[in-house]
Amino acid sequence: MTPPLGDIAHVGHAQLFTPDLDASVAFCTDFLGLTVNGHTRGGSGGGDGGDGDSVYLRTFDDYEHHSLVLTARDRPGLGRLALRTSSEEALQRRVKAVEEAGGTGRWVEDEPGIGKLYVTTDPDGHEHALYWESEYYRAPDALRPALKNQPQAKPNRGVGVRRLDHVNFLAADVLANAEFQQDVLGARPTEQIRLDTGRVAARWLTFTDKSYDVVYTEDWTGSEGRLHHIAFATDTREDILRAADLAIDSGVFIETGPHKHAIQQTFFLYVYEPGGNRIELCNPVSRLVFAPDWPLITWTEAERAKGQAWGLKTIQSFHTHGTPPVAPPAGG
Amino acid sequence: MTPPLGDIAHVGHAQLFTPDLDASVAFCTDFLGLTVNGHTRGGSGGGDGGDGDSVYLRTFDDYEHHSLVLTARDRPGLGRLALRTSSEEALQRRVKAVEEAGGTGRWVEDEPGIGKLYVTTDPDGHEHALYWESEYYRAPDALRPALKNQPQAKPNRGVGVRRLDHVNFLAADVLANAEFQQDVLGARPTEQIRLDTGRVAARWLTFTDKSYDVVYTEDWTGSEGRLHHIAFATDTREDILRAADLAIDSGVFIETGPHKHAIQQTFFLYVYEPGGNRIELCNPVSRLVFAPDWPLITWTEAERAKGQAWGLKTIQSFHTHGTPPVAPPAGG
Amino acid sequence: MTPPLGDIAHVGHAQLFTPDLDASVAFCTDFLGLTVNGHTRGGSGGGDGGDGDSVYLRTFDDYEHHSLVLTARDRPGLGRLALRTSSEEALQRRVKAVEEAGGTGRWVEDEPGIGKLYVTTDPDGHEHALYWESEYYRAPDALRPALKNQPQAKPNRGVGVRRLDHVNFLAADVLANAEFQQDVLGARPTEQIRLDTGRVAARWLTFTDKSYDVVYTEDWTGSEGRLHHIAFATDTREDILRAADLAIDSGVFIETGPHKHAIQQTFFLYVYEPGGNRIELCNPVSRLVFAPDWPLITWTEAERAKGQAWGLKTIQSFHTHGTPPVAPPAGG
Amino acid sequence: MTPPLGDIAHVGHAQLFTPDLDASVAFCTDFLGLTVNGHTRGGSGGGDGGDGDSVYLRTFDDYEHHSLVLTARDRPGLGRLALRTSSEEALQRRVKAVEEAGGTGRWVEDEPGIGKLYVTTDPDGHEHALYWESEYYRAPDALRPALKNQPQAKPNRGVGVRRLDHVNFLAADVLANAEFQQDVLGARPTEQIRLDTGRVAARWLTFTDKSYDVVYTEDWTGSEGRLHHIAFATDTREDILRAADLAIDSGVFIETGPHKHAIQQTFFLYVYEPGGNRIELCNPVSRLVFAPDWPLITWTEAERAKGQAWGLKTIQSFHTHGTPPVAPPAGG
Repeated sequence: MTPPLGDIAHVGHAQLFTPDLDASVAFCTDFLGLTVNGHTRGGSGGGDGGDGDSVYLRTFDDYEHHSLVLTARDRPGLGRLALRTSSEEALQRRVKAVEEAGGTGRWVEDEPGIGKLYVTTDPDGHEHALYWESEYYRAPDALRPALKNQPQAKPNRGVGVRRLDHVNFLAADVLANAEFQQDVLGARPTEQIRLDTGRVAARWLTFTDKSYDVVYTEDWTGSEGRLHHIAFATDTREDILRAADLAIDSGVFIETGPHKHAIQQTFFLYVYEPGGNRIELCNPVSRLVFAPDWPLITWTEAERAKGQAWGLKTIQSFHTHGTPPVAPPAGG
Repeated sequence: MTPPLGDIAHVGHAQLFTPDLDASVAFCTDFLGLTVNGHTRGGSGGGDGGDGDSVYLRTFDDYEHHSLVLTARDRPGLGRLALRTSSEEALQRRVKAVEEAGGTGRWVEDEPGIGKLYVTTDPDGHEHALYWESEYYRAPDALRPALKNQPQAKPNRGVGVRRLDHVNFLAADVLANAEFQQDVLGARPTEQIRLDTGRVAARWLTFTDKSYDVVYTEDWTGSEGRLHHIAFATDTREDILRAADLAIDSGVFIETGPHKHAIQQTFFLYVYEPGGNRIELCNPVSRLVFAPDWPLITWTEAERAKGQAWGLKTIQSFHTHGTPPVAPPAGG
Repeated sequence: MTPPLGDIAHVGHAQLFTPDLDASVAFCTDFLGLTVNGHTRGGSGGGDGGDGDSVYLRTFDDYEHHSLVLTARDRPGLGRLALRTSSEEALQRRVKAVEEAGGTGRWVEDEPGIGKLYVTTDPDGHEHALYWESEYYRAPDALRPALKNQPQAKPNRGVGVRRLDHVNFLAADVLANAEFQQDVLGARPTEQIRLDTGRVAARWLTFTDKSYDVVYTEDWTGSEGRLHHIAFATDTREDILRAADLAIDSGVFIETGPHKHAIQQTFFLYVYEPGGNRIELCNPVSRLVFAPDWPLITWTEAERAKGQAWGLKTIQSFHTHGTPPVAPPAGG
Repeated sequence: MTPPLGDIAHVGHAQLFTPDLDASVAFCTDFLGLTVNGHTRGGSGGGDGGDGDSVYLRTFDDYEHHSLVLTARDRPGLGRLALRTSSEEALQRRVKAVEEAGGTGRWVEDEPGIGKLYVTTDPDGHEHALYWESEYYRAPDALRPALKNQPQAKPNRGVGVRRLDHVNFLAADVLANAEFQQDVLGARPTEQIRLDTGRVAARWLTFTDKSYDVVYTEDWTGSEGRLHHIAFATDTREDILRAADLAIDSGVFIETGPHKHAIQQTFFLYVYEPGGNRIELCNPVSRLVFAPDWPLITWTEAERAKGQAWGLKTIQSFHTHGTPPVAPPAGG
């Protein structure tokens, strides 16, 4: 199987489940500065996780219809991660690769502004959807920007994040999932943590010139299909410092930060949205990885013990909080 | 007359007239991020300049009731500039100084949150009000901040300016007015422009450790009592860059900037509010003037011809636009 | 000929000619914060443009040996622009494409840290070099960084730019050159200026997820092979504001800025290095273009007449200054 | 005794002792971006703390000769804190107040650029020097700034701090020392920590419109005359983020930060200079305290337990590290 470099163009959108849809939408519009771009009514919506209504949200710089879907459910967590391919042919190639690798999927056409999606899962069970057809956003008059190279006026409310930047999946087996991204979808691994036992505890992968688009982090609970966080990129580090002030004054819970990650050097702030999902605000400070032969960088346990770039110790909840929440393993 | 250094504590608030009160209020809340803190109904409000309703506005860091009053009137311009004294005795000393210098004034008690004000004018006719009694602001629950050393939660809308920073008066005779500030009110002059003819064309003065609180700029039209601009300070330069983006996307007219002034080194952006008054967003980038014997710095015509700090040429309208608007002088 | 998307990985390095090599090197190290990484002695170095010594410089985030070559010559201007391919096969495909399109080239191996380069020219005569083999930089002890995902310690001197960002070529015929980049090298056009006459006066193109890597701007003088500017990206906009302060205090000439371009939205500052070449400091403020089907955005003359994003008028010398300098056309 | 508000104009300079003078000077010039402005040879310099050579350093915005003195000594710690008065009369008034309060002092004239100083101590034994005469700095050609309202060109090396901002003294009895600052020197208290026992554990005081100039923090070791830290203010928060990057890449130890203090809201980074003294880089983000009747704000133990403004827990060494170092108390 040839490495399918370039068939996945970029992360398209992510779906979050939330037990309090209204509060989660308010967080996204008031705090993040996202814009609601439509909603759909849920189906059966049964007690044990059946989905309720969905609300579609976008950043001011999204060229597509949306980059976030919030869906009512009894527990928080990650739904679909949608990846846009670079062409219809690239989509067909990736579908073929999924199926050649033993995967299965189904075609759906259930999102506004998006054509047919091929829905499958990574080995850990996180739903991935691949698609090509996507309608360019055209702003209504009230949201028209001054500059024609920007899809929408910059929001004057909240942080005003620029884009959905990446998704960090918790997974029982990091390596198996990273290899799915690499071998089946064509991601390039850029950095990883390898424990002294030799096991890969986290890996960062990219489809673009950004240094990462998806991350797998070992789920100490052993559960599958859980989310560590999704991240939105801001224009500047100052946006993140301002966000921290807005957070404390509007009751948004800050878990850790602002600080700079040693791995990937991202400037970060972690908060929880009212549904319980962890959200990162991140800024790459212009760092990009262009080298086509970029060597996978490995961090050891000893190196990780030094904490973040400027010395902040990694907060304990970072190793335990994920969505949906699960009881920690005995002895954990 | 002893130099009354220290009797004026700081600029308290400014009053702007506007022919479109609703639009001016919307600009202040949506763009500047000010908060409305009450309003009063106007009096007779006659045709030629009689005042209409007033709206009181505050920044999140104002400890007083308000720092801006918007008052409906047929033409834009500056109303009262209110200066808080450092004590009741300081107030009485300044009133005495005004009257000893041949000035007149009246005592009024017509603003919410403020005690009695002594209202007089500078030689050019700009109304100045001196006061001591001022009620500390207590935020309602919805605006309560996280930190007890901050009067109000940081707004998540608009620029979120920190304070009314200074007022720049147009004046027919700069020197006479500057001397009023120095000799009668106790301001210290920090910088000035002196033309080759020897005439002082502008002077910057301060009551505080900020490098300026009031400015007089020569009014080429020869009119009296006009306003060049009032300025609000932002927390950071990044706030001003963000403000410029918000301005173009929300239809706020940018006159010039962002750039850095050579004089006083302030980072600036000039916009017009919908009533026609010029508003500066400024950031001092931590610069303060502590020297008690700071020597007045004089800029020559040749030095001014170099433009702003980084080379931007001073925009033509900067020399002509003031409020209320007047016909330019013949040959001007 | 299939569009060769992806064969060019990124801009590798640029060569500038300078009549004052020592001063240009000092500008790069003291002001830009670049690091010298070796030099070579020139060849014959004759009077009319023969090359003298070369100095190789790098940013702290360059994974390759260098991203800038300064070469002594009697007049300033652009020498070689080197583009790294994504593989050896990609290099061979691009060489084949050049020759199928009627171009010619030669193989050289004349730069430290770089393998063989295929040197050809664009239609306007600007030298382009394609290469694959490149040695990863290993910092000496004194320049070792704290984080293993960064090639070199951050300089504590000057601006500390992150990367060579793009090159803006002056060209007699913009469209012919842009089509060379698109059809032969595989660039994607993202934005352009089209005059009312229908002629394309400038086009921005990219090989990466950055919104542009190379630009062609019409040379009003009709000369060929000239440079408008090369640009280095900073980490933040604040770096550019700090750079402007450093510039005025160290005698670096600022041509225009800081401000924000309407086209591509880049935050910019233009200076001249002592050899006479225009250098841009730029910051994209996290903006990237991921859409694989991004539609070429066209700006009209009327739109360009509005000036830059926040209203700054385009400075006159922007239309006339290029290197090497030429006499302006009669009537220009 | 009348409250002597206004007699102390501002913090002038601080003296630090260091067991490694060369390394401490290099830290100040390379990392902080200070400029050496002369040195003096030490006197007898005996074994147990006798002073050796002194080096005088200044920021680019100091109007005086220096704001920091580094003096060779066997152990680190704080020497003299010099406060400039607002006039000769103010100086005499404060000397009288010191002596009326039972203090003693001596007149010396031992610093370049400074006239006679009255040297006394606070109750805890920290040396304070009061002075009025001070020579304005005139930059040599090589350090001449572009703007005449700035004393010196901005350094292109290191952080480039703007001013010595404040000193934080460790003291056995916070209240007694704070009252010395208030009653004898005329400082205004702005914030404090009061333990549940009623004891004041820290108090922040100011002579200016900055929210604090000096701080007393309880020394848990019971020792006297020790230093918690001195602080330099940067122009921006971005300067502090850049400083953190420079620190890790140049081997400067970061103790904690960057983060935002809850008390006083200062954005901070704490590092140790090679002599062992703690140095803060701080940025007030435009916050100033103008209210002449600002009410002393009291933080309780419960409020302090919440950590810093954005949730960072106060680091343990913050409660133990001071200079000179002492053995912690038994059971501490």
